[in-house]
This record gives sequence, C-alpha cells and structure tokens, in this order.
Amino acid sequence: MAGSSVKPTPLLKDELDIVIPTIRNLDFLEMWRPFFEQYHLIIVQDGDPSKIIKVPDGFDYELYNRNDINRILGPKASCISFKDSACRCFGYMVSKKKYIYTIDDDCFVAKNPSGELINALEQHIKNLLSPSTPFFFNTLYDPYREGADFVRGYPFSLREGAPTAVSHGLWLNIPDYDAPTQLVKPRERNTRYVDAVLTVPKGTLFPMCGMNLGFNRELIGPAMYFGLMGDGQPIGRYDDMWAGWCMKVICDHMGWGVKTGLPYIWHSKASNPFVNLKKEYKGIYWQEDLIPFFQSAVLPKECVTVQQCYIELAKQVKEKLGKVDPYFIKLADAMVTWIEAWDELNSSGEKSSKGTSK
Amino acid sequence: MAGSSVKPTPLLKDELDIVIPTIRNLDFLEMWRPFFEQYHLIIVQDGDPSKIIKVPDGFDYELYNRNDINRILGPKASCISFKDSACRCFGYMVSKKKYIYTIDDDCFVAKNPSGELINALEQHIKNLLSPSTPFFFNTLYDPYREGADFVRGYPFSLREGAPTAVSHGLWLNIPDYDAPTQLVKPRERNTRYVDAVLTVPKGTLFPMCGMNLGFNRELIGPAMYFGLMGDGQPIGRYDDMWAGWCMKVICDHMGWGVKTGLPYIWHSKASNPFVNLKKEYKGIYWQEDLIPFFQSAVLPKECVTVQQCYIELAKQVKEKLGKVDPYFIKLADAMVTWIEAWDELNSSGEKSSKGTSK
Repeated sequence: MAGSSVKPTPLLKDELDIVIPTIRNLDFLEMWRPFFEQYHLIIVQDGDPSKIIKVPDGFDYELYNRNDINRILGPKASCISFKDSACRCFGYMVSKKKYIYTIDDDCFVAKNPSGELINALEQHIKNLLSPSTPFFFNTLYDPYREGADFVRGYPFSLREGAPTAVSHGLWLNIPDYDAPTQLVKPRERNTRYVDAVLTVPKGTLFPMCGMNLGFNRELIGPAMYFGLMGDGQPIGRYDDMWAGWCMKVICDHMGWGVKTGLPYIWHSKASNPFVNLKKEYKGIYWQEDLIPFFQSAVLPKECVTVQQCYIELAKQVKEKLGKVDPYFIKLADAMVTWIEAWDELNSSGEKSSKGTSK
Repeated sequence: MAGSSVKPTPLLKDELDIVIPTIRNLDFLEMWRPFFEQYHLIIVQDGDPSKIIKVPDGFDYELYNRNDINRILGPKASCISFKDSACRCFGYMVSKKKYIYTIDDDCFVAKNPSGELINALEQHIKNLLSPSTPFFFNTLYDPYREGADFVRGYPFSLREGAPTAVSHGLWLNIPDYDAPTQLVKPRERNTRYVDAVLTVPKGTLFPMCGMNLGFNRELIGPAMYFGLMGDGQPIGRYDDMWAGWCMKVICDHMGWGVKTGLPYIWHSKASNPFVNLKKEYKGIYWQEDLIPFFQSAVLPKECVTVQQCYIELAKQVKEKLGKVDPYFIKLADAMVTWIEAWDELNSSGEKSSKGTSK
C-alpha cells in the first residue's frame, strides 16, 4: 500500500540545482539559508550585465549575465529572453543535475498553520520522488503521502502510478493573479493553506507559475523553455504559462505526471498591475486561441523523446498559431533553436564554458 | 471577479431532500439535528420490511421499505437493489425537490481544525450553487470561494464556469478504502483536513462515494442510478462507483461540472473488511475493464437529455461490457428500467403513491 513505507526524504544534494533569475542583490536568500545553503545555485542575471549582483556569503553559486549567455550560446542566444524572468530557462540548460528547483527573488519562507517554517524544497523533492496519478483521480489527493492511500474504486492496475516530471508549488499572501484581477482586487491575499498535493489529470491543462517550481530535468528539461518574452517581444508574463502548456502536452504524451499544491512560499509583494497589463494584454486575447490549440494538440507516436515531441510541437505552433500572429512563427523558430542549444550543451557530458563561479 | 460578490448561503429549505438508506434506528440524526431538522428526510429502509425503524422526534420524513418500493414501482422494482445501500437511489426517484443530499447512517458531524462543528449540508449547497470549472484547472482550487479567484493564465472566456451537477464530500476518521486496503491498513485514519473544493476536470474519472454526496436532481437525477447490488447479485459496494462513472461521462457530455473536497463528515466505523472483500472481489477485477470502457465512452450529440444519454450508455454497457460478464447485460436492462420508472414517477408532476409519512 502506498503510504505504508514512508521513508525520510533524501535531500538530493548532488542531484539538484536551484535556479534564480534576478536583477537585484539576493538578500532574500538570507531567509532561505537553512534550506538552500547546501545546494548549488545557478543565478541568471537579467538586464544590465555591468551591474553587480550581491550574493550573501556562504552560498555556492555560478552566475550568468547576458554577456555570458551570448558568449556561451553564440547566435543561439536569441532564444533566451532579455528583460523578462523567462531568461531563467538558460539556467535549466547549463545545469548538469537531475532536478531543478526555481524560485523568484521576491519569494520568502512561508509558515504552515502550526507556525513552522516550511521547507519548500523538501516538499518538492517528496513530490518529485513519489509517483503521480494522471490517469484516474484520487479523492484523498496524493495517495503516496503519509496517512493517505488510494480510495475504494481506484483501479488496482493504476496504483503503481507514473513518473513525476513536475512539482508546481503555490503561494501564500500575494496570489499569482493577472493584471485585470490585480486591478479589481488590490487587497486580496491568499490566506488559505490547503494541505494537499494532487496530480493534474491527463488531458487537463493548468496555469503553471514559475515562481516556485520543481522538475525532473532529466525527464522533462528540454520542454521547459520559457519562450520569447520581454525586450523586443510583444508579450511578457506568459513565459511560465507557455512552458506549462507545452510541458503538459508532452507529459501527457509520454505518460508522466505533474503535481500541484504543496509546498507554499510567501510571495511578498505584487508586481505593478499597470506594467503587467501592458505586458499581458496580447497574451490575454491570444490565450483564447492558445488553449484550444494545446487542448487538441496530438503528438504522433513516433515522438519518443522530449526533444522529438518539442520539435513536433514547434511545427504545429508555426502551422496553426502562425495564423493568429506572426509572433508565433518567431516563437516556433526559437523553440527549435532552444532544442539545438540544449542538445549542444547537454550531449557531450560537460559544458565547455562557465559563467562566474564562486 | 469571482470572489468579490460573496452572499449568504441560501438554505434551500423547500428545494432539498435528504435521502438516508438504513437498516437500523436513526439515532445518528440526533447529532445532525441543528443542521437537518429543517429539511425533509426520505428514508429508504433496506432489508426486512417488518422491522420498525425509529426516527428521533421532530424530524419531518417519509419512509419507504421494500413493500413500498414493490407497491410503487410494480415489476419495475426489480431495478432497485435489496440488502445493499444501493437502494438509496429509490429516494432520488420519489423526491420532487431540485437538490438531493444523501448520507450514510454511520456518518457524524466532523469538526474543522478550529474545533467548530462542520455544517456539511451548507457547504454542499455552496458547492452546488456556485459554478464548476471542468475545462481548465485552477491551481488555487475553487475560484468561486471567498478569498480565491482565477489565477494568471486562466482563460477569461472560461471564467463564467459551468453548472455544477454534483458535490462530492469527504470523510475524516475512517477513509473510504476497499477491502484489500482495509485489511492491510486496519489502523489508518484520515486526519488530514484539506481546506479545498475543486472541480474534477472534464474527461477525468474519479471514485464517487455515496456516503456524503449532494447533487442537483433536476440536472443529473436520472443518471444517479446505483445499479444492481447486494441480494441476488454477484457484487456489492460498487453502487456509488457505478453511478459516479455513468454520471461523469454524462456530465462531460452535457458540459456540467462535478466538485469534490469539502465538506467532511466524521465516518465513525469501518465496515467488516472480510464481508467487504466478498462483496467487492468481482468488482475489483471487472473494474479493470470498466474504467477503460468509461474512459473511451462517447455519447452522440443527438443525446440532449440525461435520459437519452443514460439509455445510450445502457446500450453501450450491454454491447461492450456484456462480453466481460452476463451480469452487465442484466445491469444494462436495469438501467433502462430505472429510466422508465424515473419518467413514470417524474413526468406527471405528482407521484401517485407515498410511503409512510410523518
């Protein structure tokens, strides 16, 4: 039975990198010190590369600014966004670890209802190391958690579960709202701690937020491209959404699971809703075409690697979404470039060039 | 925005019946008195009809025993199970109300983490009166709850939601496990209070438990047939599962939503796992064929009423599951009989014959 063999959570110290996109000094790490200090950080500096980013003492990190990205990827650096947190996906590409945890620099340690600090990373690791249940819904949520199991009526043939590719964590305090909702509900705070982890069922899309996100890079890494956003692009704040929809279609095809729910982080401040509206407004109406596209996207069974799936999806994006706006033709090309760059950095075992290492 | 117009919950005193299947005196109602006394109860007495069921003073009820069922339905009474709580669906048929809440007689009032008694019925009414979100997953759960909303990336065209047909509540203390899990985990108790309501996505099946269940009878009533179980049948304890799978396929076809999560009841005692194993064992292996059947069932667009959907589903059950076991041919016929009986009792406005009314 699922919950009967609960073991201590492995920490995966040598198997996980923490990826942080930022434009500022990383003071927020002080609060995370007890949970992050033992891991390696990959910092992706956005914006002006001449700015010095201060990292608190004692953290093991490498830092990449735009000059590093351009130097390492050459012309293929065009697929990495600038002046948008979408640039974080460069960190996924240069990591050599099995797992990635990525977090925004305005996210702090949350407390559970008992007032204890939540080790978000530990919960992500639990989520990623236990199977998912994408093929049938379990009403008592994650059957692999301690004190839970599959309920009556859950087919026994499905109780082995599926490999978990992604663990999507949530946010207390400032919820991840779009600009219109921010504008209408400026005072809304998320105070509801929902003590659940669940698998997003196969065939169901969800809005994946990049603020507090873990994934198995070995399984799904090449699908975690955060698109073309920010400087020179007509859209922002859809980077994680785009990655989430592409990733989910591919996980469904591959038979892998995506979990959402715990852990919570404390999201300290809302971004400016007026700025956000400007970034989002094309996304808000394009999205009405994107969702039906992803809901009906089918990958041929010949696609047996994530790379093959992703290239096929790029082809479909160009064919079907190119009609919505020429932006998607450019994005489809960037998706192909991303895979080429991924394979270049990840095929020969060791990456050839590093950023600033400490 | 969804959560900005929270109103007091209507009590639906004249629009909701509580259906209770039982073989014993209904002492459990004492604890529910403050929450149930204002509603009408439909008690479906299972087993020996000569036994007198005591109902605590002050409750407004009608009671049907097997003799009543036989008298009211005539030969069509064959579709109502005997010696199995599946008989409860007779109560859905004779009700004339818009909503049904059904509860088992070993379910008591649970407490929330603050120690307050949970008015389960009020939460079911909230669930049923607010829309569902079957077409896209909202990571902050039910966006219509106070303090919640749709997150960034949720398509605006889907924020009106879909009508909610079913509200599936959960259980603290004794979880709804099958016999094998009961045998392996005799001491497991559900102590995790998950403060969430969520929509089971379109295309996803789940194990619907009849212990603590609300539904919109006007919308989905004819699909809530609990099958042929118990006396004279090769199977038991799959009544609610069967109803849940049929109902979900039909809700998906009709564009209606199904919610699960809150409210909790306190499930006081586990039923005997040895007896349960005997009832369930055919279900445990038949289920491996049933799930793929329901997952791939498609209803033609000509089916525009629940009755039409249900008759079509009965046809498919006979064709495809008849090969699994002759039981399903009998069950498919009973499904048709159920619809005939439903229409007979529900077409002429008033039912002609009553049970014992108080």
